Amino acid sequence: MKKYEKVYFKYREDIINGYLKKGAQLPSIRKSCEMFKASQTTIEHAYEKLLIDGYIYSVPQIGYFVNIEEERIQLHKQFDQYSMIHKPVSYLYDFRSQTVSQDSFEVSTWKRYIKDVLDDRINMSTYGDSQGEYVLREAICQYAYKIRGVLSQPDKILIGSNYQSLLFILCGLFEKETVIAMEKEADQAQRVFESYGYEVKIINSNDGGIDVEDLKKYDVDVLYMNSASQGNKKRPISNHLREELMTYTTEHNILIIEDDYNGELTYASKHHHAMQGFSKNDNIIYCGSFSRLLLPSLRISYMVLNDQYSKIYQHFKNDYGPTASKLEQLAFSRYIVDGYLEKHLRKLKKEYKEKYIEMKKAIEEHLPYQHYLNEAYLCYCIELKDIDENRLEEKCIENKIAINPIVHHILKISFASIDTKKINQSISLLSKLIQECCL
Amino acid sequence: MKKYEKVYFKYREDIINGYLKKGAQLPSIRKSCEMFKASQTTIEHAYEKLLIDGYIYSVPQIGYFVNIEEERIQLHKQFDQYSMIHKPVSYLYDFRSQTVSQDSFEVSTWKRYIKDVLDDRINMSTYGDSQGEYVLREAICQYAYKIRGVLSQPDKILIGSNYQSLLFILCGLFEKETVIAMEKEADQAQRVFESYGYEVKIINSNDGGIDVEDLKKYDVDVLYMNSASQGNKKRPISNHLREELMTYTTEHNILIIEDDYNGELTYASKHHHAMQGFSKNDNIIYCGSFSRLLLPSLRISYMVLNDQYSKIYQHFKNDYGPTASKLEQLAFSRYIVDGYLEKHLRKLKKEYKEKYIEMKKAIEEHLPYQHYLNEAYLCYCIELKDIDENRLEEKCIENKIAINPIVHHILKISFASIDTKKINQSISLLSKLIQECCL
Repeated sequence: MKKYEKVYFKYREDIINGYLKKGAQLPSIRKSCEMFKASQTTIEHAYEKLLIDGYIYSVPQIGYFVNIEEERIQLHKQFDQYSMIHKPVSYLYDFRSQTVSQDSFEVSTWKRYIKDVLDDRINMSTYGDSQGEYVLREAICQYAYKIRGVLSQPDKILIGSNYQSLLFILCGLFEKETVIAMEKEADQAQRVFESYGYEVKIINSNDGGIDVEDLKKYDVDVLYMNSASQGNKKRPISNHLREELMTYTTEHNILIIEDDYNGELTYASKHHHAMQGFSKNDNIIYCGSFSRLLLPSLRISYMVLNDQYSKIYQHFKNDYGPTASKLEQLAFSRYIVDGYLEKHLRKLKKEYKEKYIEMKKAIEEHLPYQHYLNEAYLCYCIELKDIDENRLEEKCIENKIAINPIVHHILKISFASIDTKKINQSISLLSKLIQECCL
Repeated sequence: MKKYEKVYFKYREDIINGYLKKGAQLPSIRKSCEMFKASQTTIEHAYEKLLIDGYIYSVPQIGYFVNIEEERIQLHKQFDQYSMIHKPVSYLYDFRSQTVSQDSFEVSTWKRYIKDVLDDRINMSTYGDSQGEYVLREAICQYAYKIRGVLSQPDKILIGSNYQSLLFILCGLFEKETVIAMEKEADQAQRVFESYGYEVKIINSNDGGIDVEDLKKYDVDVLYMNSASQGNKKRPISNHLREELMTYTTEHNILIIEDDYNGELTYASKHHHAMQGFSKNDNIIYCGSFSRLLLPSLRISYMVLNDQYSKIYQHFKNDYGPTASKLEQLAFSRYIVDGYLEKHLRKLKKEYKEKYIEMKKAIEEHLPYQHYLNEAYLCYCIELKDIDENRLEEKCIENKIAINPIVHHILKISFASIDTKKINQSISLLSKLIQECCL
């Protein structure tokens, strides 16, 4: 903390804790210099910040006075408490998958784009396009073609703050008695289908991906699937299965919703394109998202409609409002056009390739269990056997190791946010804890 | 445009237009100094920006070379064209209601908060809370109580990027055969109800607001209404009607969804609280939004659930994803806690009061038609008679005046983005155009 910040927080705390009440005069700048053994500039800087933040006001020639109302004090206390309670715990190793590498994304570049857009008053003081900003749709159109082989036009792209809000819009355009087949573990999508009261059939997977024989048992209208993470082993879809599914859905007039979560982030398997570009009768609606590529706090997803639903959507377009932040949309469009997204993607692929190889080695060395890579989710799945799982979860907390909840004896360990050089020692420690929990 | 920007754009254009092809060497800095009659610092600044933006690369001791791929050139061309085509038209007077006063919002303050949040790496590199950031829910809780009399707790608040995405979530929790009564002209809400296939009954209004006798004709489960803009004259709801509606809905077990669009922005009528705080049996769900108070491009809305739906929501909470930008949520929470929102609200009320009085005077002076104020929507509604409306719309375009489409002979003219001093002359000009279109 800088010196002036120390002074600022000292007075701020005194005000919030009621030691300096409304109207009370603050020590003069000279006096504060003596008290804090600080320069005049430092104290002026601190007072300036107290002024800007509304804690004090200044009476020229006389001095500075406390300026705060009861309710705000209350709010501030809660706010500070919250920041204290919710201060992210610092872990020795974080194997959970909701965090990403904190160093991979160049925040300074992103800030520059955000700043540029904020400076554009006319754009910021008008409502956005409910379908998504045109420039961003255009940029995504080119990006999705180049990187994922997705065939689209800006008019068929729908931008939203997350893929769930886009699904809410899309599913509202379906017939009332729709039957949907889906793989398990897509909770957000399932929530939308169930909100609409659509009948949901969970389709089994085998090692190769969706079990087509299982799918054939039901008379469904829609198939929701993740093409980048198929089957028990969570691998990108094989060409064979892709052809089989496309033939079957075409013959039976089934609409496919292709969730391409992290599909562009291949670092272990060969590069493959999304299914959408291979469709022969335009029966695939494609969903893409950027939260895992950029900062997870950025909320931008998109959907490429097929011709049929694009027409229905356009009919109702004016009855929808925009969901994604216009600020983030415009900043992101410029970021893509200037080539930063592709550059960043290349960097991520390189980084994750190193990490996954390092983790593969470490697992083979330390963990004598069945395991496989879930490429799209940036993690290894370890099939635990004869382990007291609750005890393991407790032990991890004690040792400041963050892990995902163990589900069906599978422990998912993500390498996304672990330093490459520490992967071996992190797995070695995890292995030790697992051994201590053997039944 | 600054000098270095001129140099930057000149070279950028030459590259995009293919005059400087990939691999071509740029003039040396000294040569550019001569060509542009600029200082070395200026040229270096321009080259630096070309470097950062990826148009050129530098070979030490040798020079600068063009570095751009075909596709990016194509993208840039489209982007530039788009910026040209979509450059907001500059109007003499803009009477539409989707724009807000561009000067009223202190962008510099907002930028500071955005910057602070962006600097907080840990917060930005993790996913947000699907219900909305806790600090923002807490801040909104206090704000809504103080300003709107809304009774809530952070756990009952749901934050989304717009009220429609919140309605999609809420309506997904209703029974399948829900019947909804609503006032007309709420297209976004109606789209949600119809997406779900719920039966919608449009309820008539009289001058005082919702026609309760009309409502009583139907057996409905939900009443969707805007309490700040009631009846043909779009006034805040009267105490009498409020009591009548609450008694009726309580007796018949009807849930009210109260849309409080701009409810806090009273400048003509007396301050009134939202209905939610008066509810005796917790049958009101409240919706609030900030897009009209701050920059319209900011997407933050909230919903205060009642006990019943809060419990249902909590049950499914993990199956929803966050929709509002975490960046904007965190910046906004600090903005509220530091008192800026209330300060800004006071400023807006003062400004809109002056504007509406000025416009009232001007209309009475120049426009001999029935008219009334729609307070929540910041506009006057003029009931046109015997006017060639298409011709009027054309004439307005010719004269660089932006108006809303005329619907049912009503012309809505908003004073939100017109300079107070120019209101009289703007209405005078509009009056002249209207007279020229008399049938």
